[in-house]
Amino acid sequence: MEYKSLREECYEANMMLPKLGLVIFTFGNVSCVDRSKGVLAIKPSGVPYEALTAEDMVIVDYDAKLVSGTMRPSSDTQTHALLYKTWDKIGGISHTHSTYGTAWAQALRDIPIFGTTHADHLTTDIPCAQPMKDAYIHGDYEYNTGLQIIDCLAEKNLSYEEVEMILVGSHAPFTWGTNAKKAVYNSAILEECAKMAYFTLQINPEAPRLKNALIQKHFERKHGPNSYYGQN
Amino acid sequence: MEYKSLREECYEANMMLPKLGLVIFTFGNVSCVDRSKGVLAIKPSGVPYEALTAEDMVIVDYDAKLVSGTMRPSSDTQTHALLYKTWDKIGGISHTHSTYGTAWAQALRDIPIFGTTHADHLTTDIPCAQPMKDAYIHGDYEYNTGLQIIDCLAEKNLSYEEVEMILVGSHAPFTWGTNAKKAVYNSAILEECAKMAYFTLQINPEAPRLKNALIQKHFERKHGPNSYYGQN
Amino acid sequence: MEYKSLREECYEANMMLPKLGLVIFTFGNVSCVDRSKGVLAIKPSGVPYEALTAEDMVIVDYDAKLVSGTMRPSSDTQTHALLYKTWDKIGGISHTHSTYGTAWAQALRDIPIFGTTHADHLTTDIPCAQPMKDAYIHGDYEYNTGLQIIDCLAEKNLSYEEVEMILVGSHAPFTWGTNAKKAVYNSAILEECAKMAYFTLQINPEAPRLKNALIQKHFERKHGPNSYYGQN
Amino acid sequence: MEYKSLREECYEANMMLPKLGLVIFTFGNVSCVDRSKGVLAIKPSGVPYEALTAEDMVIVDYDAKLVSGTMRPSSDTQTHALLYKTWDKIGGISHTHSTYGTAWAQALRDIPIFGTTHADHLTTDIPCAQPMKDAYIHGDYEYNTGLQIIDCLAEKNLSYEEVEMILVGSHAPFTWGTNAKKAVYNSAILEECAKMAYFTLQINPEAPRLKNALIQKHFERKHGPNSYYGQN
Repeated sequence: MEYKSLREECYEANMMLPKLGLVIFTFGNVSCVDRSKGVLAIKPSGVPYEALTAEDMVIVDYDAKLVSGTMRPSSDTQTHALLYKTWDKIGGISHTHSTYGTAWAQALRDIPIFGTTHADHLTTDIPCAQPMKDAYIHGDYEYNTGLQIIDCLAEKNLSYEEVEMILVGSHAPFTWGTNAKKAVYNSAILEECAKMAYFTLQINPEAPRLKNALIQKHFERKHGPNSYYGQN
Repeated sequence: MEYKSLREECYEANMMLPKLGLVIFTFGNVSCVDRSKGVLAIKPSGVPYEALTAEDMVIVDYDAKLVSGTMRPSSDTQTHALLYKTWDKIGGISHTHSTYGTAWAQALRDIPIFGTTHADHLTTDIPCAQPMKDAYIHGDYEYNTGLQIIDCLAEKNLSYEEVEMILVGSHAPFTWGTNAKKAVYNSAILEECAKMAYFTLQINPEAPRLKNALIQKHFERKHGPNSYYGQN
Repeated sequence: MEYKSLREECYEANMMLPKLGLVIFTFGNVSCVDRSKGVLAIKPSGVPYEALTAEDMVIVDYDAKLVSGTMRPSSDTQTHALLYKTWDKIGGISHTHSTYGTAWAQALRDIPIFGTTHADHLTTDIPCAQPMKDAYIHGDYEYNTGLQIIDCLAEKNLSYEEVEMILVGSHAPFTWGTNAKKAVYNSAILEECAKMAYFTLQINPEAPRLKNALIQKHFERKHGPNSYYGQN
Repeated sequence: MEYKSLREECYEANMMLPKLGLVIFTFGNVSCVDRSKGVLAIKPSGVPYEALTAEDMVIVDYDAKLVSGTMRPSSDTQTHALLYKTWDKIGGISHTHSTYGTAWAQALRDIPIFGTTHADHLTTDIPCAQPMKDAYIHGDYEYNTGLQIIDCLAEKNLSYEEVEMILVGSHAPFTWGTNAKKAVYNSAILEECAKMAYFTLQINPEAPRLKNALIQKHFERKHGPNSYYGQN
């Protein structure tokens, strides 16, 4: 098998999606990149998870052109490819239609930062990119979805290294990270924050955003220079 | 076993319902048709899924008359039979009382198309047929449920080949497809869309329907003449 | 083992509760009766389901006095005993704190009949008995809970043979049936109706009750003299 | 292995959290104390549950100083240590970010006592400590979280022996008990009460708190001097 370890990383990460309850049937896709070779591995299009093998993973370049593989890559491949091309420090991307995250995306609302669970992972609301202009939809749709994601972060002045997740309005979540497993982890975190924020607003429509001191404290104890969460 | 492959297809599809969390106890039923023989196979009435065998599937004709089998067919058999008789391109029908789909049916509301998950499968709201007139309920109720479904699509100018799912008001969902497995798949898709639409409206009661350009794009990339989703 | 078959019926029915997701830890209890001997079997108090054995089931008479067994019976035993004493055609009783059913009980609201899922099982709203007067609480509380259930049905002119479930206000559901398994089945049905009614009202606060013709039709096709649901 | 039985109690209790659906990934932590030795065992920081072993449990003293272990203890260790130091009758502490409990914490609302499920465990609303002042956040944050918990109970005139659970506002639940297993049990009870109270208010925003006579009755039959719940 060519690109064996890349295909295996991709396969393992894709298989986490149904296990974590984030996808049904053929929904969703995960990719990972080999920066030294300039290629990424991604799930083949429309294949159910229980039928998937590591060999099925499709290898493409940063322009989404086929490099290796016998199957057609995910229909979202151009979105992934553009993100790898533009953001040189990400190693994996995950896309799901998880229930609560997708509901917020359909509601066209950012997910407010209400608590420390959220702040343990990012210091801002989870942004929701507004739906694409018709001209872009009629154009190269999946490539433009990548642009939409990149532009949304830029407009909100957010760094992709600090905010590793976004909602594409009317569509669903995309998340990323330093590798494929971390990207999938972020998909699960987004879904959990989406769920908690939903219930929070149902209980108290006036619930306040988390105060700044707590946002900074929780993020820094996990990710700051003096972090003391975890074993490293 | 007579009608072996038809019975087996029917059995396998019925067994997907509890596995997908769409039914409890004896709720729901799936059928499939053999057009060359003019018969359909359907779940027997009131039998729990864990006790079901392929041999138990009941074979009836398009007028719901018994052809083969030792058990009484589903009480909804006439509804299935009429749909096969009227719509000559469907191969399978699935009926569940899945929680969210049934809640929308009880609320007498179409499920609005809010996102691409929905548009990946159909380009319109999921229609809700209004409750039957009393005269029809007192008449041949299950046959009239079939008429109610057919009439609702006709009134809304929808094609059963493009819209493979409906809510029967005050009752529950019916879905269909080119075969039994596809019909059950559509039951799960309906439930997922029902769930997402529910949360969407709770988050934002003013959430807009999906814009037309996105509806067309997502449906066509999966089902149009130049579709590029999946492996075929 | 004395009262072997009664204890086994009771044990099997109790073990359905966690399997159906209706209880956690030691919550809930099921009993069944042997009319010929004038005794009932019931779950011992406070024992986790995974530790339960058939031998643990406690045998008491219709006054809740111990007949056989080494453990203390459920703290709700007097409620069960009074119902058996008063309603001579029931064979089993089930009590859970299932989530949605309990929420309706805490909301002090009857569960409205919104659809055919509900009408397949009973033709009225699921009644909610209002909280007990203080004098009764300070008296023989569990016995009085039984009275509260019996009185609520009587006040609403409902027959325990037709309405096999109730909410005890501020507390939780009680259900019954011709045997223990049927009583537990009714606990699951109540929970499912409670869940669907909840979502229905969230989607449409003006959702109408099911029309009478449908109520009668669905109940009669399953339970009427000319019923045609099931195999008998 | 040093502190073998303490580490094993701690490990077993931690492993209950994912099994009960109260945590994902590395969320949450449980500790237990050996009063005779003045030490506590606690989960190591940031280790996924499936990778955990009893040996990994970290032993610290009441000032959270390392006594035995090769891993860094939970980042919440100072909170646990202070509670053991202050409340001399608790034997275990559990901390989760369970979905409904956390939503109430984020909504900054006490969980109202609406029913007997709640009253079986405590006689008051589940208190929500308001978010910490900035000066305390910038100080010794985890130690101050312990103070925040202790102060909230004191201000509300509640005894830690009677109220074994609290929400830390904008954060999540903490629960405790006479041992680690009981503390985890309380985490599950809090989540169940949080869920039921949520649905209760959605069904009836005017739902009344449980009447006092029922609060007393249910709590006393389980915990009072004449309790008759359970086998002891």
